[in-house]
Amino acid sequence: MAGHDDGKAVANGIPPPPFQLPTPDSPDVITANMFKLTELTPDDRKRFLLRNLVAHLHSFVRETSLTTAEWDQTIKFLTRVGQTCTPIRQEFILLSDVLGVSALVDAINNPPENGATESSVLGPFFTEDAPDVANGDSIASEGKGEYMYVEGRVLSVDGTPIPNATVETWETDANGFYDTQYTTRDRPDCRGRLHSDQDGHFGYRAVVPVAYPIPGDGPVGDLLLGIGRHNMRPNHLHLMIEAPGYRKLTTAFYPEGDLYLESDAVFGVKKSLVVKLQTIKDEAEARKRGFPKGDTFKLLQRDIILVPEDLAAKAFKEKAEAAAKNAAVSL
Amino acid sequence: MAGHDDGKAVANGIPPPPFQLPTPDSPDVITANMFKLTELTPDDRKRFLLRNLVAHLHSFVRETSLTTAEWDQTIKFLTRVGQTCTPIRQEFILLSDVLGVSALVDAINNPPENGATESSVLGPFFTEDAPDVANGDSIASEGKGEYMYVEGRVLSVDGTPIPNATVETWETDANGFYDTQYTTRDRPDCRGRLHSDQDGHFGYRAVVPVAYPIPGDGPVGDLLLGIGRHNMRPNHLHLMIEAPGYRKLTTAFYPEGDLYLESDAVFGVKKSLVVKLQTIKDEAEARKRGFPKGDTFKLLQRDIILVPEDLAAKAFKEKAEAAAKNAAVSL
Repeated sequence: MAGHDDGKAVANGIPPPPFQLPTPDSPDVITANMFKLTELTPDDRKRFLLRNLVAHLHSFVRETSLTTAEWDQTIKFLTRVGQTCTPIRQEFILLSDVLGVSALVDAINNPPENGATESSVLGPFFTEDAPDVANGDSIASEGKGEYMYVEGRVLSVDGTPIPNATVETWETDANGFYDTQYTTRDRPDCRGRLHSDQDGHFGYRAVVPVAYPIPGDGPVGDLLLGIGRHNMRPNHLHLMIEAPGYRKLTTAFYPEGDLYLESDAVFGVKKSLVVKLQTIKDEAEARKRGFPKGDTFKLLQRDIILVPEDLAAKAFKEKAEAAAKNAAVSL
Repeated sequence: MAGHDDGKAVANGIPPPPFQLPTPDSPDVITANMFKLTELTPDDRKRFLLRNLVAHLHSFVRETSLTTAEWDQTIKFLTRVGQTCTPIRQEFILLSDVLGVSALVDAINNPPENGATESSVLGPFFTEDAPDVANGDSIASEGKGEYMYVEGRVLSVDGTPIPNATVETWETDANGFYDTQYTTRDRPDCRGRLHSDQDGHFGYRAVVPVAYPIPGDGPVGDLLLGIGRHNMRPNHLHLMIEAPGYRKLTTAFYPEGDLYLESDAVFGVKKSLVVKLQTIKDEAEARKRGFPKGDTFKLLQRDIILVPEDLAAKAFKEKAEAAAKNAAVSL
């Protein structure tokens, strides 16, 4: 007898369920049995998620009479999405992004608070290695694009300045590429981490970001082609702001006028996040801000308003409870 | 300037949509915009599928107020499912199986026809390399398990015998393993391909299959543990029957009495597919059937009734049209 690969088949030791199930002779009984089995899930939240997932998944298959061939294509597509992922590429997040799911999760988890800066999608280009820069310093090396100065204050919703808030920021260069998209990247560029001062002020030199395509050489790229959608994001500057006691804010500012502002492939733009870049033509101003060349730069002025954590948690909880009343299947 | 990896960012050349979209400032607008964009999908069927997928996916996220952490875990889980797939292991099919989706797709695509043999799930252990065997021959090498003889006729629903139908069959050995689960597999075993004779008869020697666990060492195994479900399938014999002009039938016979018959981890059992194995204690009979040792064997007698292709297509179409009337979103 050949040796069996024990890694391939492991009984998990859970006994048959303690209730009767009719044989699943029809679509209705298959779905009913699957629901009945969810009663075995010990964790309340997991059970709620599983029941609603099953309700929607089975309804999708039944309402569309998904064919065996379409099911097979879906299996192959999802497999390819998983196998396109690498330590520096996340194709499942991209799939979630282009289907509006990431934006939806973001919107639900960060309900707007009166006056607070709204959130936007994180995207796949955040890295952990952004360098610390001092207020007034540059996050971009010389020659990466048109000069832009970003400044504002970090404030609480009641107007109180928040000192020493961490401001992480990252963006494309003038080619529309993040540093991580260069095969020869040897250090971070067009990204940095700074802190607000005692009055909540922050400011840094950067470059004007440009619109760019999300990765189009994988299964998600093929999907967008098949459903007639472009794969562009409008130009934007990413920001992630953290301060103790406040809801962490992941957001982005979108300069007005971009061709793709209305049809961002990943649904990240919000009206309140569209910003006007002022053109400053003044050599003294440029020198004062520390730009080494030229007499022109763009100025992005915008305060960041954070929500206290308890207020944010309360707003989420209230909305979640209201939404659960519309769930396909309750606990 | 470092060289850019062109494989990472490709604009697909599709222009912005020819209609206005409001900025997606709220969950409602995100979902509405995603729907509006589905109008760009050129293919009618794809558009119908996409619209219903989006309806259910977004409803799931909204009704459950999926948290950012849960979304992140889901992304990681699906990525792991994709990366567990290999040329001989399909973890996404397994996921579809344990959620009842494979059985549902099977049931919808193969609606029962009066008197016809019902279908069952294909499972992940079918291979292309089953050897041709003559009627009366064995599909299992000696020593693989308790003797079993399988016999019947391939018939049309009107009782007409179908000659020369292709009968593919595969099963576990007495250890509960398919040949492909042995790391040292050098040739197929416990599987074969034969043809019905002029009267539609077929018959072959095999072994009594035993219950077995589906692969438990991957993300689907972890999922089942987390939701309190065993990962066992009751013992069964797989059959796939093809004849020109008839709907291809993928099915399985499930010997009665198995502990897991009611709670098959992949929802494959149907009442009409549960069979009784007769115990034949008669050395002359055993010799006549070609069993080389002993005087006892199990006998599985069951005719296979196929449905003409046009009848099957009509039944599917009628049911699909009725189901589409309940779809979340129409064309």
